Amino acid sequence: MNLEKKNIQKYSSIFRDIEDRYINIHPIQRGGVLTPEAQKVLLSFGDGYSMCDFCFEGRVDRIEKPPVREFLEDLAKFMGMDEVRVTPGSRTAMYIVLKAMTNPGDLILLDSLAHYSTYIAAENAELKVIEVPHQGYPEFALNIEDYRTKILEIKKETGKYPALLILTHVDYNYGNVNDLLTVGEIAEEFGIPYVVNGAYSVGIMPVLGKAIKADFLIASGHKSMAASGPIGVLATRHKWAEKVFAKSKIQGDWSGRKFSNKEFHFLGCSPCHGAPLATLMASFPAVVERVKHWDEEVKKARYFVAEMEKIEGIKALGKQPKEHTLIQFESESFHRIAQQYTKKGYFLYNELKKRKITGLHMGMTKHFKVNIYGLSWEQVRYVASAFQDIAREHNLTIK
Amino acid sequence: MNLEKKNIQKYSSIFRDIEDRYINIHPIQRGGVLTPEAQKVLLSFGDGYSMCDFCFEGRVDRIEKPPVREFLEDLAKFMGMDEVRVTPGSRTAMYIVLKAMTNPGDLILLDSLAHYSTYIAAENAELKVIEVPHQGYPEFALNIEDYRTKILEIKKETGKYPALLILTHVDYNYGNVNDLLTVGEIAEEFGIPYVVNGAYSVGIMPVLGKAIKADFLIASGHKSMAASGPIGVLATRHKWAEKVFAKSKIQGDWSGRKFSNKEFHFLGCSPCHGAPLATLMASFPAVVERVKHWDEEVKKARYFVAEMEKIEGIKALGKQPKEHTLIQFESESFHRIAQQYTKKGYFLYNELKKRKITGLHMGMTKHFKVNIYGLSWEQVRYVASAFQDIAREHNLTIK
Repeated sequence: MNLEKKNIQKYSSIFRDIEDRYINIHPIQRGGVLTPEAQKVLLSFGDGYSMCDFCFEGRVDRIEKPPVREFLEDLAKFMGMDEVRVTPGSRTAMYIVLKAMTNPGDLILLDSLAHYSTYIAAENAELKVIEVPHQGYPEFALNIEDYRTKILEIKKETGKYPALLILTHVDYNYGNVNDLLTVGEIAEEFGIPYVVNGAYSVGIMPVLGKAIKADFLIASGHKSMAASGPIGVLATRHKWAEKVFAKSKIQGDWSGRKFSNKEFHFLGCSPCHGAPLATLMASFPAVVERVKHWDEEVKKARYFVAEMEKIEGIKALGKQPKEHTLIQFESESFHRIAQQYTKKGYFLYNELKKRKITGLHMGMTKHFKVNIYGLSWEQVRYVASAFQDIAREHNLTIK
Repeated sequence: MNLEKKNIQKYSSIFRDIEDRYINIHPIQRGGVLTPEAQKVLLSFGDGYSMCDFCFEGRVDRIEKPPVREFLEDLAKFMGMDEVRVTPGSRTAMYIVLKAMTNPGDLILLDSLAHYSTYIAAENAELKVIEVPHQGYPEFALNIEDYRTKILEIKKETGKYPALLILTHVDYNYGNVNDLLTVGEIAEEFGIPYVVNGAYSVGIMPVLGKAIKADFLIASGHKSMAASGPIGVLATRHKWAEKVFAKSKIQGDWSGRKFSNKEFHFLGCSPCHGAPLATLMASFPAVVERVKHWDEEVKKARYFVAEMEKIEGIKALGKQPKEHTLIQFESESFHRIAQQYTKKGYFLYNELKKRKITGLHMGMTKHFKVNIYGLSWEQVRYVASAFQDIAREHNLTIK
């Protein structure tokens, strides 16, 4: 080991290059910004295993003090489902559902805009994925009825229905909002379990799992529920609980040790027993409240798109009018300007930073993504006018 | 959804029933207590995905700002291994190793004091576990040479060697410290990959993986590296990196989407991109320093055992003299006293709480576990004398 103090000291003082008064428009960060309540509990529950002070059953979901058990019941209600468990991130929740509900070699049907981690969870569960196509540029919309077509194709080719239907409620590239109920009805018609990935919706907009006939609804605490990561939520119905929350059956061959209270797909007890769960709980009352105001967020998104599209060469991609605050823009005009700079990829990032706006991916000018969730009207106006200023300074036309 | 504000408001103000001046002797919390440096970064990196401000490759281990990539190289050096990745907890690291290195139905050999999550990780990977026995009460010691005996037995019975050898460096029940090198030599002799679970050792005592011939060394940030959970570390050698850090090969059948930069066993990118990794980094310089003073911690543990064993009916279990600060006591005398109380399980807990000591499992009086890691000599003396006081007040003899 050759670790000189002077070389490693820097790790103890890492910092974010963002000051408090900056406006953050990072596409994956807006819904995870902590509430003041969460910031407060963050410090008291910062230590490892802080939730386990009064754990008697060796299961984080059973803890009564703080009231985790009751909280999870309320969280299930909030998601319109029967039972929930927390997981270290929604990708783990997806993997658990796939692993518990399928056998290796099975075929599943998913939307072609699904998050990469859905594909990779399927790869881990050794499944074959068949995609429901999207319609390409500029809206990249799914034709939801294609679920039915694909199911019938699969049946014809393999003699079996797909093992699961997966639909991403809101995709991470274009922020397109999909019609959950129609696929739920198709799932019901064919008797295929239906998984909804709500990582970009549950916690910022209203989603009730049973109402849209979901068998599983997955949420992300750090993406959309104002929690400190990693924490995901796996919600299901009573009918699947025994299967997905199955208890451990392994036994030591010599010792006879058993762990029959532990849920084996969750590796015994989900490792979220500190800041992630504490902040998810602390933000919950505010989250329950904020989803009621989703309409206003959509209005801001549409306003923002309208203002941005006044700039020469800027066009919002994805379905219009916007139904979500995550927006991808095509920006050949900014891209053209960036070519004149030595550090091309820094052009838009630096121009925004000068204006106290952060969160744009460096290196992105041809297309870029922003999320304006939770910004005030004043902030939304300021961000739009900042983009327009940059355009004006570089001699682009503003309509 | 029927979530009345007045019923859910309580979640926003959860608190730990522990004040700052309390001494915490919780068996699984001592090594995870945050350093002041970690407490400081906790707030700035509390938001979800805070580490991803300047992520260009979609992989948390490649981030240069803050210097995650360099940190992970230093962490590998600290663990005496070649390459590391972070995972949401050491149980996930164990599962990844088992899944990547075996096939369903394979047989693995592990110590019978292994953490429950090792058994359950094996259950998830569909493996058969064969245990190396321990010698029972009162020391529960492994006979390390039994690894050889068991390997030969397995070969004789199945025609094959076990797929992996697993040894828990320090077990979570008795805090026994096992001889890592002897098993490493046996592993080398038979050519079987060797996995060391260092969840209770890496970060509080010196452990160098290659020096003890480990192929994999697993650590826990929130158990022993002063990090806010969940975060584990999977360290390995160059020779296994390609296998365990294998890239995704899945491809969308319609879209052709590929994710060939993503490590598929890690579900693409380990979801530790906020407070867990930030605090692991911030505490690292202090952790590198503190392992040098392990001898002093062992002295305190032995002193504590000696003081506790002065109390009538109290006996330390596990190997003596202690080599670790995690200690289980047998306590028939306290148990006898507790029987006279209406709330039996609260007796010792409440008596300690009166004395500003916390972390004892309620309900435990026949046996109880404590961890005194990182307490000052003064605190260790105080805790020991508190137990003696309680004994004296209840008419037990003190030697």
